[in-house]
Amino acid sequence: VKSTRGRFFEDFSTGETLRHATPRTITVGDVALYTALYGDRRPLHSADAWAQAVGLPRAPVHDLLTFHVVFGKTVGDVSLNAVANLGYADGRWLRPVYPGDTLAAESVVLGKKEVSSGKAGIVWVRTTGKNQHGDEVLGYTRWVMVEKRTPGAPSGSGDAPQTRAVVPAAELVAPPIDGRRALSEAWAMGAGAAWDDYGPAEKIDHIDGMTIDAADHTMATRLYQNTARVHFDALAMAGSRFGQRLVYGGHVISIAWALAANGLGSALAILALNGGTHAAPSFAGDTIYAWTEVLEKAPIAGRDDVGALRVKLGAGKNAEPREQVLELDLWLALPRR
Amino acid sequence: VKSTRGRFFEDFSTGETLRHATPRTITVGDVALYTALYGDRRPLHSADAWAQAVGLPRAPVHDLLTFHVVFGKTVGDVSLNAVANLGYADGRWLRPVYPGDTLAAESVVLGKKEVSSGKAGIVWVRTTGKNQHGDEVLGYTRWVMVEKRTPGAPSGSGDAPQTRAVVPAAELVAPPIDGRRALSEAWAMGAGAAWDDYGPAEKIDHIDGMTIDAADHTMATRLYQNTARVHFDALAMAGSRFGQRLVYGGHVISIAWALAANGLGSALAILALNGGTHAAPSFAGDTIYAWTEVLEKAPIAGRDDVGALRVKLGAGKNAEPREQVLELDLWLALPRR
Amino acid sequence: VKSTRGRFFEDFSTGETLRHATPRTITVGDVALYTALYGDRRPLHSADAWAQAVGLPRAPVHDLLTFHVVFGKTVGDVSLNAVANLGYADGRWLRPVYPGDTLAAESVVLGKKEVSSGKAGIVWVRTTGKNQHGDEVLGYTRWVMVEKRTPGAPSGSGDAPQTRAVVPAAELVAPPIDGRRALSEAWAMGAGAAWDDYGPAEKIDHIDGMTIDAADHTMATRLYQNTARVHFDALAMAGSRFGQRLVYGGHVISIAWALAANGLGSALAILALNGGTHAAPSFAGDTIYAWTEVLEKAPIAGRDDVGALRVKLGAGKNAEPREQVLELDLWLALPRR
Repeated sequence: VKSTRGRFFEDFSTGETLRHATPRTITVGDVALYTALYGDRRPLHSADAWAQAVGLPRAPVHDLLTFHVVFGKTVGDVSLNAVANLGYADGRWLRPVYPGDTLAAESVVLGKKEVSSGKAGIVWVRTTGKNQHGDEVLGYTRWVMVEKRTPGAPSGSGDAPQTRAVVPAAELVAPPIDGRRALSEAWAMGAGAAWDDYGPAEKIDHIDGMTIDAADHTMATRLYQNTARVHFDALAMAGSRFGQRLVYGGHVISIAWALAANGLGSALAILALNGGTHAAPSFAGDTIYAWTEVLEKAPIAGRDDVGALRVKLGAGKNAEPREQVLELDLWLALPRR
Repeated sequence: VKSTRGRFFEDFSTGETLRHATPRTITVGDVALYTALYGDRRPLHSADAWAQAVGLPRAPVHDLLTFHVVFGKTVGDVSLNAVANLGYADGRWLRPVYPGDTLAAESVVLGKKEVSSGKAGIVWVRTTGKNQHGDEVLGYTRWVMVEKRTPGAPSGSGDAPQTRAVVPAAELVAPPIDGRRALSEAWAMGAGAAWDDYGPAEKIDHIDGMTIDAADHTMATRLYQNTARVHFDALAMAGSRFGQRLVYGGHVISIAWALAANGLGSALAILALNGGTHAAPSFAGDTIYAWTEVLEKAPIAGRDDVGALRVKLGAGKNAEPREQVLELDLWLALPRR
Repeated sequence: VKSTRGRFFEDFSTGETLRHATPRTITVGDVALYTALYGDRRPLHSADAWAQAVGLPRAPVHDLLTFHVVFGKTVGDVSLNAVANLGYADGRWLRPVYPGDTLAAESVVLGKKEVSSGKAGIVWVRTTGKNQHGDEVLGYTRWVMVEKRTPGAPSGSGDAPQTRAVVPAAELVAPPIDGRRALSEAWAMGAGAAWDDYGPAEKIDHIDGMTIDAADHTMATRLYQNTARVHFDALAMAGSRFGQRLVYGGHVISIAWALAANGLGSALAILALNGGTHAAPSFAGDTIYAWTEVLEKAPIAGRDDVGALRVKLGAGKNAEPREQVLELDLWLALPRR
């Protein structure tokens, strides 16, 4: 049998390394599609000229495009039979990715634990994305609930790992962007707010809404070569409890982040994904709204031109009171005065 | 408050300059998306080899992609609270844009005038798009009706500017394309008609129809980083008089122009936008048809290989008698024998 | 009259050559869109680094993207008034296409034959796609049933050509990919099966399903600059026997081939299209599934690192028993041990 239905809970071994298929060169074509899918208008990813003005060789690939491409590679080995994507921890973006770079991903199984029903189990993996030079560009921990191949038979797995609640600010790696130059070219960001201007507990309503259509969420998910059938097979999903295709959770992350340009337009980079929950699924036809709460601020070692802002980025859908679909805990880099 | 609901009528001052956010590098990725969105089949924008055969270094970016990117930048400052996009005048394309060029836009407020209801006012702006060298690639005047922040209070504004009905032919700037070479390679255009072959008052039915879907018009509008919420937020629009998302008017312009390849396939460039009206809104599900009437012909100074053709390009939708949605007054460049 | 309704059966002359409009430079933008439309995850077309590891200068354009672009050019001259796309024969991919290459196409009319009803006729064409150096990259024979301009009047045409059932293995041209290197880097393919591992009559269920949406099939078809109105004009098609827009048959081919990565992930190239039938039309909302049957195996002259596998690739749609929509007879290149 040469085709596969994917790995089940019993197929994972703690400590094993999964080298994921399909290395991927990210091009300006992917960058254009990312813009068409989300409309993100932060200038760093939009204009080579502005990226050069703030110290980079050209516009880097969007942090979330990097994330989705790396994540997408893991699906075939990790989450083809996932019941739920439960959480993220300890994610860090470590260096810029530029068009032309080729990304590849691998994951180490950190631990696994059967759930009490005996029908599924939770698998923790640490995923690393590297460029063609072998340099790590992104790493994160994720845990998913995966179906068991044989629901009745106890597997005995119970080695759940510890995950950190927050990446310590001292471990954040800010990209080599000149924050003061960014502020002096703030017209391009449509926002002049600096790191200095955000206060703990500040809340921002990002105001705008974005409706998801079937063709855009599926095109996005294919772009990332994410193979989870829940996003693509409407016939099979008609028979599921959802009754229809599910939107890839990362698509909602990118929508929320694009909407957050209205209020967080001067965020220069996402430095860390401390945690995240897809609180409810989204479907074609849903309209997404986003809001942010500032959690804390921290300087970045060796940098007086950019600072780290820890935020809770939430997204909800449809009429008030909105149903929450996403909560992310992020460290961002903002320019300092 | 760091997020914004946009500028209202009272926020504009005649004479002020608005430097618009988000400079944008146009890439071959954007070019490919433009093709996927409209299917335009004129060879100049499709093939480097043909562009080189007619004298350009490579295939230039489509004139309307340049227009949409420049227009898109203005929305956040000019028309987020627009009730209607009323008109265009005095638009000229001044030099080719190539993949890799970075465009930025600014607008000068030419004047403003409150409408009699006292609820809104008309704002006239002159928008200029420049490349990374600071050279103007496109300029046009537009006027929009913008909501007042305080509908009851008269603002006293009444300095409506004069706009020209037609760009004089003497001011047209034709791109450095060798018209005779284009005619000698007419196979590539799927059309051999030269400037010489079009007569005043000639009417062309472009025959074909194109149906708009929700995902393609929203992807287009995001590609242009146009942030007008009427195009994206189906929930909010469900409560509007339209009941659904509106299609960005420029999307209909590009559809009409692509359809017009069947009859105007040898148009080499759009030189000027003399005027334009979005006569009615379009929605997902509408099918667009286009027709052209030749208004006048003029030589182009210093050029005997290309001539200027002034046309009225109309578009209508759905069953006969079609509801007219668009009327544009354009100067085009066509090759001469 | 400058716009056209296309050629009818009477307009074709056996032996004439049609030089098709709109040469096309394929870019990384097109490559990204192809990924977004189908999600194909074979590494050769996804990663420059992997393509280089197996001996190519960079990732070549997907064989089917080349096919669709070449095919798309022919539509305006050949099949604008086609009633049905009846078959393919003798198709061969002859050399890799790389981003930046400009493709152009021409077709020779091989023969034509009126059908008994007298309302239409079958036209056979041999289409050749060439790159900017004039090198043939793809050639195939296709026959379509085309409407007559004057249904009543017998045209007397009856010179149907012979077509070959199968391209002889000796005529296959394998791209310069090092098959052994590909196998040693099999992690990237997500599949380790070699040519040696496939046996005649072996059947593979590709398991996964992909639902077609209106916006994705129309974007694909516009990307290929295919101008057949049956794909785009929902109003006109509402009055047809289908009641709605038809999906371009090539879109289904690409979906089936992308699904076939689950079971044929180590196929390095499509070498020949021996034959093909679009057994039934597809529409937005249909979910496509694919399966493969191995027909025969053959060595490739001068190559001990790759072998040829002849397969029947089928696709069906919707609930079991699925309605078959596609059957292709292909020669593939797979790495040998």
